[in-house]
Amino acid sequence: MSKLKVCIIGLKGSISTVLISGILQSVRNKVKPGALLTDLPVFDRLGMVKLEDIEFGGFDIRDVDMYTSAIENDANNILRLDSDLDIKDKLNAIPVFKGITMNSGDAITALAGEDASLQEKSMINTVNQIRGTLRNFKGSDNCVVVNLASTEENVELSETHSTLEKFELAIENNSKEISPCLLYAYAALKEKIPYVNFTPSIGSEIPALCELAQVNKVPHAGKDGKTGETLVKTALADLFVIRNLDVNIWYGANILGNMDGKILDNSKNASTKIESKKSVLKKCLGYEADSKVRIEYMKSMDDNKVAWDHILFTGFCGAKMMMNFTWFGIDSFLAAPLVIDLVRLINLANNKGDCGIIDEFAVFFKSPMGTDLNSLVRQYQNIEEWAIKHYTNEAENA
Amino acid sequence: MSKLKVCIIGLKGSISTVLISGILQSVRNKVKPGALLTDLPVFDRLGMVKLEDIEFGGFDIRDVDMYTSAIENDANNILRLDSDLDIKDKLNAIPVFKGITMNSGDAITALAGEDASLQEKSMINTVNQIRGTLRNFKGSDNCVVVNLASTEENVELSETHSTLEKFELAIENNSKEISPCLLYAYAALKEKIPYVNFTPSIGSEIPALCELAQVNKVPHAGKDGKTGETLVKTALADLFVIRNLDVNIWYGANILGNMDGKILDNSKNASTKIESKKSVLKKCLGYEADSKVRIEYMKSMDDNKVAWDHILFTGFCGAKMMMNFTWFGIDSFLAAPLVIDLVRLINLANNKGDCGIIDEFAVFFKSPMGTDLNSLVRQYQNIEEWAIKHYTNEAENA
Amino acid sequence: MSKLKVCIIGLKGSISTVLISGILQSVRNKVKPGALLTDLPVFDRLGMVKLEDIEFGGFDIRDVDMYTSAIENDANNILRLDSDLDIKDKLNAIPVFKGITMNSGDAITALAGEDASLQEKSMINTVNQIRGTLRNFKGSDNCVVVNLASTEENVELSETHSTLEKFELAIENNSKEISPCLLYAYAALKEKIPYVNFTPSIGSEIPALCELAQVNKVPHAGKDGKTGETLVKTALADLFVIRNLDVNIWYGANILGNMDGKILDNSKNASTKIESKKSVLKKCLGYEADSKVRIEYMKSMDDNKVAWDHILFTGFCGAKMMMNFTWFGIDSFLAAPLVIDLVRLINLANNKGDCGIIDEFAVFFKSPMGTDLNSLVRQYQNIEEWAIKHYTNEAENA
Amino acid sequence: MSKLKVCIIGLKGSISTVLISGILQSVRNKVKPGALLTDLPVFDRLGMVKLEDIEFGGFDIRDVDMYTSAIENDANNILRLDSDLDIKDKLNAIPVFKGITMNSGDAITALAGEDASLQEKSMINTVNQIRGTLRNFKGSDNCVVVNLASTEENVELSETHSTLEKFELAIENNSKEISPCLLYAYAALKEKIPYVNFTPSIGSEIPALCELAQVNKVPHAGKDGKTGETLVKTALADLFVIRNLDVNIWYGANILGNMDGKILDNSKNASTKIESKKSVLKKCLGYEADSKVRIEYMKSMDDNKVAWDHILFTGFCGAKMMMNFTWFGIDSFLAAPLVIDLVRLINLANNKGDCGIIDEFAVFFKSPMGTDLNSLVRQYQNIEEWAIKHYTNEAENA
Repeated sequence: MSKLKVCIIGLKGSISTVLISGILQSVRNKVKPGALLTDLPVFDRLGMVKLEDIEFGGFDIRDVDMYTSAIENDANNILRLDSDLDIKDKLNAIPVFKGITMNSGDAITALAGEDASLQEKSMINTVNQIRGTLRNFKGSDNCVVVNLASTEENVELSETHSTLEKFELAIENNSKEISPCLLYAYAALKEKIPYVNFTPSIGSEIPALCELAQVNKVPHAGKDGKTGETLVKTALADLFVIRNLDVNIWYGANILGNMDGKILDNSKNASTKIESKKSVLKKCLGYEADSKVRIEYMKSMDDNKVAWDHILFTGFCGAKMMMNFTWFGIDSFLAAPLVIDLVRLINLANNKGDCGIIDEFAVFFKSPMGTDLNSLVRQYQNIEEWAIKHYTNEAENA
Repeated sequence: MSKLKVCIIGLKGSISTVLISGILQSVRNKVKPGALLTDLPVFDRLGMVKLEDIEFGGFDIRDVDMYTSAIENDANNILRLDSDLDIKDKLNAIPVFKGITMNSGDAITALAGEDASLQEKSMINTVNQIRGTLRNFKGSDNCVVVNLASTEENVELSETHSTLEKFELAIENNSKEISPCLLYAYAALKEKIPYVNFTPSIGSEIPALCELAQVNKVPHAGKDGKTGETLVKTALADLFVIRNLDVNIWYGANILGNMDGKILDNSKNASTKIESKKSVLKKCLGYEADSKVRIEYMKSMDDNKVAWDHILFTGFCGAKMMMNFTWFGIDSFLAAPLVIDLVRLINLANNKGDCGIIDEFAVFFKSPMGTDLNSLVRQYQNIEEWAIKHYTNEAENA
Repeated sequence: MSKLKVCIIGLKGSISTVLISGILQSVRNKVKPGALLTDLPVFDRLGMVKLEDIEFGGFDIRDVDMYTSAIENDANNILRLDSDLDIKDKLNAIPVFKGITMNSGDAITALAGEDASLQEKSMINTVNQIRGTLRNFKGSDNCVVVNLASTEENVELSETHSTLEKFELAIENNSKEISPCLLYAYAALKEKIPYVNFTPSIGSEIPALCELAQVNKVPHAGKDGKTGETLVKTALADLFVIRNLDVNIWYGANILGNMDGKILDNSKNASTKIESKKSVLKKCLGYEADSKVRIEYMKSMDDNKVAWDHILFTGFCGAKMMMNFTWFGIDSFLAAPLVIDLVRLINLANNKGDCGIIDEFAVFFKSPMGTDLNSLVRQYQNIEEWAIKHYTNEAENA
Repeated sequence: MSKLKVCIIGLKGSISTVLISGILQSVRNKVKPGALLTDLPVFDRLGMVKLEDIEFGGFDIRDVDMYTSAIENDANNILRLDSDLDIKDKLNAIPVFKGITMNSGDAITALAGEDASLQEKSMINTVNQIRGTLRNFKGSDNCVVVNLASTEENVELSETHSTLEKFELAIENNSKEISPCLLYAYAALKEKIPYVNFTPSIGSEIPALCELAQVNKVPHAGKDGKTGETLVKTALADLFVIRNLDVNIWYGANILGNMDGKILDNSKNASTKIESKKSVLKKCLGYEADSKVRIEYMKSMDDNKVAWDHILFTGFCGAKMMMNFTWFGIDSFLAAPLVIDLVRLINLANNKGDCGIIDEFAVFFKSPMGTDLNSLVRQYQNIEEWAIKHYTNEAENA
């Protein structure tokens, strides 16, 4: 199997540095990193790209070297990077490209280093620059673009996003309605590179980009990685459905302290994510319960996340009962293996000729594109069937 | 649709009086009791027996009238029985038959009123008495026997239980290896009445009784109703499997205060239930995590139950994370609707000609007979398919 | 001991109807209601007014009879009022006076029934009406006024509130800066009736009213009853101080469904309460931890309240550790006994000649007037000493 | 101020290696370790021994070097000892003396390395050997002995322990009723060295040793460090007392994975600790609530400890309410600073001429010797008064 180049938007962020450092250590130490779906036999037998054959690069807007960022991001010192100088060299050798800040909102612009971000004045030049960078990075290898950048402010869908033609015209006109995540997605799909949106930002979900993916026969998937509270929610909600118990209240408080949390402390950016988290419940239950989701930024949490959910439900003859759960996750370590799974799987999809939205990848996302299915087990059954189908086709073609 | 006679073993217990009072009130007030799977369209269209067409009766060993017991059992006063004299009359009109105490162990024998339990000296006479009572109660109607009695001490399987012939011989010899739940199950199946075991006691699971069910073409199902901690466990465990997260510890503390808890405070009776609760995890995960389950009787809990579970798991690159949940259930109100579902469904199965263990009913049980499938969602998919199959057959035959 | 007339502002609210119904039932059934500090020997020996010697009356702005309101307020049916017709008669015989809505903000005005609230056009007439009502209600008995009304919007302190003279001038000028709770407190103190503010509203805390209390030699106390999350906080915070553990984060989510919660769902009213809850922590710890308090109105909670607190702290050599607690309270049942304690105690204080703010009553309040002491145990020691002092004086004078 | 020699029984255990490593790093890095009561001004002004003036040594029965043990004990890698070679040298230079296994029970004997434990045949020789070692270690400096060894099996008090004379006779007779912790305590007190018992073992609590401490005018204190669940319990219980709320149930599950947990997994050793934890509640509340305490050893917890407590209580008019708390502690890091406080304080007490049980040190212990006071705040007030008294005396004498 040939090499896979993974181009990460938000290369210096927590998920990215944890995932890259973890893979580099695993390959060096010849151990499995764990927590990979694609290591399970039903997926592995499809011929997944090997971890040692993955190469990383990406875009970022911050002035900090990869190693320093990686140490800061792993606040719990799980990877013990401070005493791993071999990793220092490898991390700092990874190609970093200047990122886009144009139209990205105040919270994100505040993070940007002047020399670290693209300063093109026209949007079309910016896009062309990004496309050239991608083409160059890809070379003749397999390649995937993944969006791991901070959540953008909510984009209001309009005519601009409705067709590829209007979208391309808007780029030429330097439209304010086009945010960085749209430009990256456009550039990737234009270059026929599979694209994964792991963030709550709009990414490739707009009609114009779905159209482009179809035209160019490229697979894409998203959005918003399902790593914590929502993961539990989509496993637990089925219980209430199956027992025909009426959920009255589902309240969730999420406390986090990393960059993701800091950006979400800005209410414009948070609304994107809260919507993503809330709509899940209705889709799982089939009705609207009284539900609230809070995202609280409290710096001392670092990369740790605590979510507390309170569920009040009504059973037989009106009996009121409760369930609470508390989830203590380390966000980047939950997200990293999902990203690896996704790049392996979408690369495989591309090689098998799948294109457009791959809705079988819903199991990885809080707001899965192309489907309303949110039940975790049923999502898993879908991707398992997808894997079995490709395996069987291959066997038949062999 | 004709009447259904439901014969409950443990008629004066919490689950029984809550379920009967709840159904009587719902029918009178013309409201749905809620929390019934069989009210969902996919089941309901199969022609379920109507709640107003169910009649109750049963066995018990205690000296207390039904109404008094019902008030005590509903310690949270959810049904407001104390001011419902109409229900008093209806409850006290329900036929109560003397129960068996022979070989039931000290904890249970201590509950028995002398005049309220069968005092036959030979086991065969006892069985014949039970059979006569059942025949009489059933008359020409549909009938189902449900075991809701307190958990018995663990029965050690031996030759005695291995074939129908040896079992019947052992009855004639007044064997110490035959406990009341076995006698009731035997009597029911002998009378060709479908049998449901909602308790952790052995019930109809022994080879001899499985043989009898096949010979007599009667359906049976069990065992141990899945109402609380285990219900959550079988919904949540899939999450760890699907994310390939390694569960290191799964600890569960269950605190309860009703008669069920009191009997389980006797370690011989508890071991039956703890085994039932623990083996579930291994079946869900596919490997043995370090797991403990505690059942604690603390009287002031009354009918309320609190379960706290602590789960420690390992993710990407060895990162340790945790999840806790707390379940605040009212045991009898969680169990009652499951029992109604089961009697409706097994009566349907019987009328459709299904016999032997109905393993599609696994969704209701902690230790489902006839299958190792413990994942809640997948169990539900099985029973849904079973319902669809019967509906389609019916449509084709029509 | 003579009678005590208790005049409640917010007579039809949850705390009020629970407390009156509970006392009436306790007196009738000759049982102690429980949860009263004043039943402990150290207080009781001071000669507390007996429960049977308390008579109730009060102000409200809503169009509903007392019994109906009492049933609605006790959503958990703890007092079983629906089948207690004796209580119905007693509740509906309690004198209800028309309340003030002038300057009370939109959230509260929305509750008012037209015929149930005072419609005087001038503020001075309103005050005189209230004073007359109080004088009349009191007669020649002991009397106490207690504020249990919904939380008002925050009052910004200004010149108007700084002296009694300016305050009385402002009343004459129908000032917008004078809200109902200020008028009630003024009326009570003017009539030399002890006044207790159990709500987060400003009440008698403004300098003008403190001055009036001193001039008229009346005792008053407040504010904001300490019933749930803050109660726990002021018991637990000492632990971190005593172990010299550094609290980094203290986050609290409070979910409630009663009228109190509904009013607090209005952000202007909530800010008053959140401030009250937050400032406590700094006073307990002696430094500013990163702290947030959320109050969430979710209707299905009814009178139940769940608070979840997440505490992150640093110990020896930077070790990070956590504590979580969950509090499941029934708000009105936690508040009611405190109100009874307070009316008994302030009546005693008045009879003993104590006047001005009684800061020894801090143990009952989230924002104790007259002191910065928030540690629960130390507050208790203060009131205990106060009781011992009065007991000793009495003994000496005897 | 002169040097302080601290002799630790159980030198290679978690608490010991965490405390020594932490102090060595703090002194070297010139930072405060944090979490020390004795760093608060009210204590510090008494002239505490400086951290850099403390020297360590001690007894152990295991075959492992200090540094290796220290790394294993700090499973969360908080101190990052693996890359701190300076500490390696310092730890391995600490004098380790052979420990006693005689009469220590199977669970503990199983830990002993043959060459690492004293093999004297007679008890009197063993004692003399220990005394010689202590005398030698102390030299002309201040010295304190602290028991941090694994919990012993419960010792049944008998005549043997009732007077010093009988105890010394029993030593000569190699009595089976004398366990290692008694011998160490005896040796220390005999050498006039202050003794602290931080474990649930009996230590210096027997009448014979209290007599010896009085005769020799040595201070001693104990027992069982209050670090986690019990710490919270003694802060929270006051809340229920102060609000006159009736505690019906207080259930506590403690899950831990270190050596302490492993030893406690042996029921004989656990009973000592569970008794210590349970009796606290009655002393705090003044009555017997239905209480259970579970200690569960689950290896993957390593040095982390989770305690979950469920409290059910009754308030006004019988209203049932609940509180739960979860404590996520790192045991050794909670214990270590208490041990440092204790050695500093008992050394001070000794220098000031205090002798016998110092009951003012109760704030540090689950089962404080010499007092029934368990309320955390009140215990703190006692030690604060003790410090103020000594400070005042000093000022007066100056």
